[in-house]
Amino acid sequence: MRIDVFYLPAMVRPENLKGRIVAVIDVLRATTTIITALSSGARCVIPCVEIDEARQMASDYPRDEVLLGGERQGKRIAGFDLGNSPRDYASPRVINKRIVFTTTNGTRAMHHARLAERVLLASFVNRSAVVRELSRGEHVCILCAGTNGKVSLDDVLVAGALTAGVRELGGSAPILNAPAWIAEQIWRTCQMQDLLLGALRGSCGGRPLVELGLENDIRDAAQLDRFSIVPRFDAIQGVIT
Amino acid sequence: MRIDVFYLPAMVRPENLKGRIVAVIDVLRATTTIITALSSGARCVIPCVEIDEARQMASDYPRDEVLLGGERQGKRIAGFDLGNSPRDYASPRVINKRIVFTTTNGTRAMHHARLAERVLLASFVNRSAVVRELSRGEHVCILCAGTNGKVSLDDVLVAGALTAGVRELGGSAPILNAPAWIAEQIWRTCQMQDLLLGALRGSCGGRPLVELGLENDIRDAAQLDRFSIVPRFDAIQGVIT
Repeated sequence: MRIDVFYLPAMVRPENLKGRIVAVIDVLRATTTIITALSSGARCVIPCVEIDEARQMASDYPRDEVLLGGERQGKRIAGFDLGNSPRDYASPRVINKRIVFTTTNGTRAMHHARLAERVLLASFVNRSAVVRELSRGEHVCILCAGTNGKVSLDDVLVAGALTAGVRELGGSAPILNAPAWIAEQIWRTCQMQDLLLGALRGSCGGRPLVELGLENDIRDAAQLDRFSIVPRFDAIQGVIT
Repeated sequence: MRIDVFYLPAMVRPENLKGRIVAVIDVLRATTTIITALSSGARCVIPCVEIDEARQMASDYPRDEVLLGGERQGKRIAGFDLGNSPRDYASPRVINKRIVFTTTNGTRAMHHARLAERVLLASFVNRSAVVRELSRGEHVCILCAGTNGKVSLDDVLVAGALTAGVRELGGSAPILNAPAWIAEQIWRTCQMQDLLLGALRGSCGGRPLVELGLENDIRDAAQLDRFSIVPRFDAIQGVIT
């Protein structure tokens, strides 16, 4: 099998993701939070790029069926029910709710993969489950969301963890593009030297969280295999389930 | 100081390189070959993207003042004097000659950096000389050419060697973007484990050379600090000296 990793959406054209299985990563924090919400019983997550779009979308449903969630500059948006901390969503409050959710990087990356056969959401918290799904593909892609157009080490580390995971499952050794090979090496280095939390704290995704006093979110996001679901983004319906 | 590495031209807009010192890398083989030519006494190198453009350009000079060099699919172009093997240019034949040179990836990367204050050509063979020049900058960029739009490990390794070199010169630790940090780690891993030649052979730039029986070119390109010049691309004149 073949694994291509892209450190940013800008590194691959949407046409080149057509027909592939694509795992999208925005580990700090969108994909971690969405995986947590769905694992905690939310009915679905509806990702929106813009705040107004999210408000409009939420108003289409009865008030008690929907929660508005998301962030700007790391903070909960005024008037929204929830922010973007994974632990906000590890709560009975989300059970059976539709979560209308807006963050910038993760949502854009999912839309970038809209031509894929299947768009999966990946993070450390569901690593093994994603690895199992990827390992069934012939040619799979891993798309890092990055942070405001910049490569972010946090997402690259998840990409490396997934690549290493597929290799560890056995079978013939996967053929990797250079970013996949590099990501796997970096993941192994950080893991062997117990550098993972430090690397996440220092990453583009991590530094603003440290500044906002949200180190717990980094620790939560770094927990391997806390959940066993692999959310799927349906680009036509615009819904993650 | 600050070091930003970009693994592909597509990862940075030309405007964002404006006013910076930019080191361009196409280690297998364009920048290695050009550095070799200038170190061997060539007067200048004139990079062209297209073959016809190169022929046209060469015809502007007296025949005995100019050599036509370059490749397509790794092979010398029909009717050209020289290919793209560094050792073709380590010859008295190039002394005082203008080399009109066409390769795809390296030339495109140099043009991508056209708004920079200074565009330097970097490879393993002039690593320390480039490091000295970069270390004088406040905010420097390292631009990998890649191979046909794909990240190539060979160029990333040179980027890591340059980043590590700046750090080893001392002074305050440079601030790195994520790709710079990753490149430095990968360079150190390959160096410590003596993996450099193997990594170069397996890279996007290296594999076609192995297939063409040009392993000597890889070995030549991997020699650290063989030369002490840092060629500079003048985007207005379209000339490297």
